[in-house]
Amino acid sequence: MHNDDLSRFFSENMAVDGELSFQQWEGKVLDFAQRVSRGNCKGLALVSSGGTSVPLEMNAVRFVTNFSTGSRGAGLVEDLVVREWACILLHSESAQLPFRRVMDNMDTERFFTELMAPEKSSAVASIVGTYSKYKTRLLLVPYRTVVDYLYLLRLITVAVCHRAECLRTMPMVLLAAAAVSDYFIPRTLLSEHKISSNDGMTVHFSCVPKVLNVLSDIWHTADCDVSRLFVTFKLETHDEMLETKALKNLTLYNCDLVVANKLQEYKERVVMYWRDTPGSPTVLQRPPNGSIESLIVDCILRRIECDATGGGRS
Amino acid sequence: MHNDDLSRFFSENMAVDGELSFQQWEGKVLDFAQRVSRGNCKGLALVSSGGTSVPLEMNAVRFVTNFSTGSRGAGLVEDLVVREWACILLHSESAQLPFRRVMDNMDTERFFTELMAPEKSSAVASIVGTYSKYKTRLLLVPYRTVVDYLYLLRLITVAVCHRAECLRTMPMVLLAAAAVSDYFIPRTLLSEHKISSNDGMTVHFSCVPKVLNVLSDIWHTADCDVSRLFVTFKLETHDEMLETKALKNLTLYNCDLVVANKLQEYKERVVMYWRDTPGSPTVLQRPPNGSIESLIVDCILRRIECDATGGGRS
Repeated sequence: MHNDDLSRFFSENMAVDGELSFQQWEGKVLDFAQRVSRGNCKGLALVSSGGTSVPLEMNAVRFVTNFSTGSRGAGLVEDLVVREWACILLHSESAQLPFRRVMDNMDTERFFTELMAPEKSSAVASIVGTYSKYKTRLLLVPYRTVVDYLYLLRLITVAVCHRAECLRTMPMVLLAAAAVSDYFIPRTLLSEHKISSNDGMTVHFSCVPKVLNVLSDIWHTADCDVSRLFVTFKLETHDEMLETKALKNLTLYNCDLVVANKLQEYKERVVMYWRDTPGSPTVLQRPPNGSIESLIVDCILRRIECDATGGGRS
Repeated sequence: MHNDDLSRFFSENMAVDGELSFQQWEGKVLDFAQRVSRGNCKGLALVSSGGTSVPLEMNAVRFVTNFSTGSRGAGLVEDLVVREWACILLHSESAQLPFRRVMDNMDTERFFTELMAPEKSSAVASIVGTYSKYKTRLLLVPYRTVVDYLYLLRLITVAVCHRAECLRTMPMVLLAAAAVSDYFIPRTLLSEHKISSNDGMTVHFSCVPKVLNVLSDIWHTADCDVSRLFVTFKLETHDEMLETKALKNLTLYNCDLVVANKLQEYKERVVMYWRDTPGSPTVLQRPPNGSIESLIVDCILRRIECDATGGGRS
């Protein structure tokens, strides 16, 4: 896929008012970039999270969704901001959000107990403290459908890589952790109203265009003096297929790193395939009382540090 | 649809471990019935809320969902408990929950401000007070798929109508406010793993069985001495079709009341079609600073009061 084909995909599949309302984000992202470049941030991360939904009608009552809580993206953001990085999180409306997810995941009884307690539990006190300290380094951008997701991801990528002069000297990483639907229904084929039939319903989905190579091109052609890492995630259910597909994605999408997750253990263990050393992946295992996202972040930041001191890749 | 057909539908479409884990709810519902019948509750409401999801694979990664926030059901429950009714809420996992939805709907900044404030805002203080006072009168039962929803709704209906002797003298109302998917994929036709294809994807959905008449039979054949109302909801986008379909549902599902909602104004105005006076529906309009759910509840409770004093239906 080329950038022009992607532009045609958007003009064919996005409502005009959707496009206009999304364009406000360019200004907000550039303002955010100005602010964090003036602060003491060590770098800027663009993280995507959640699952994308696919409407079945123009005035949509029904959607195809995919199973994703957004916890990976939320965890990565939490670990990045405490390491003094600024983060833009492109998240689905239903995704778990950084920091507040601790309260959101509580059952109602504990939720109200925490809410009314004069002294918060240590877990809640800790996340509230971290949120307050770092909230100005966090920009949340919500999306709903798969088309909106792709549009916003390209818009923000272009803004931070090519529009924001102030970011030229700041290391950046794009962590594409959202679970993107493989299928969608083109707008021209969408039923206008709620589909109704007494004899079942047959739906044909088209393939969502593969856009990561377009984003990689935008990301890697930025005129900058510092490290710019492009990281994608691959989720499968079989070890062997996971390795094959992760290695394939390294070249297919021209990314610097593929984080391979097996569905059954994605919170416990990941394998990191680097573009320059695909044959010797880094295996990360969650430590007791720690998170795997924290290890992923440390591993990536070490690489960026290494690049900066000239000890990194050839 | 007959009750036996419905049992066959469950045995064909539900995983065995799903059925076993759901059966625990019978005991919990009966315990709850015992507790509230000993208290001073004026009646028991069974409310359903949220949208149902339809898995596209056996090990489901993708689902068809419908657009429903669950706010109608949450509002009905809030208004019922303050009027001294006990409530069982059968809600989708993603539905808004009574009381805590006020906090859940806040943006993150306001959420954390409320969380840490020594003095809560009046809106939050009010819902926390109401929750604390009435929480023992509230039983929340979560569901995920459309099949799970139908199974649990029948299980709870049978439990409160036919198993719980203690409820024989307590007025009851069933408010079926959940948005139920019209289509699903039979288990025998489900792909075991994530569907994969390079040329799009075609999915055929079967019709979900219409079960409200089965539930109405269970509801209305209960051996009891008091009012038992069976209320369904109808949502459409055109006025005329809405009236036609609401009137049709009155007889098709043998319900006492159909609450007709037009999508464009469902939080502002509803039309209540009663079985015994279908030609003269009650129109409810949201008052300033009030909720439409509060009016729906008042209207239903007046009818129950009227039945109890013999001034009601013929």
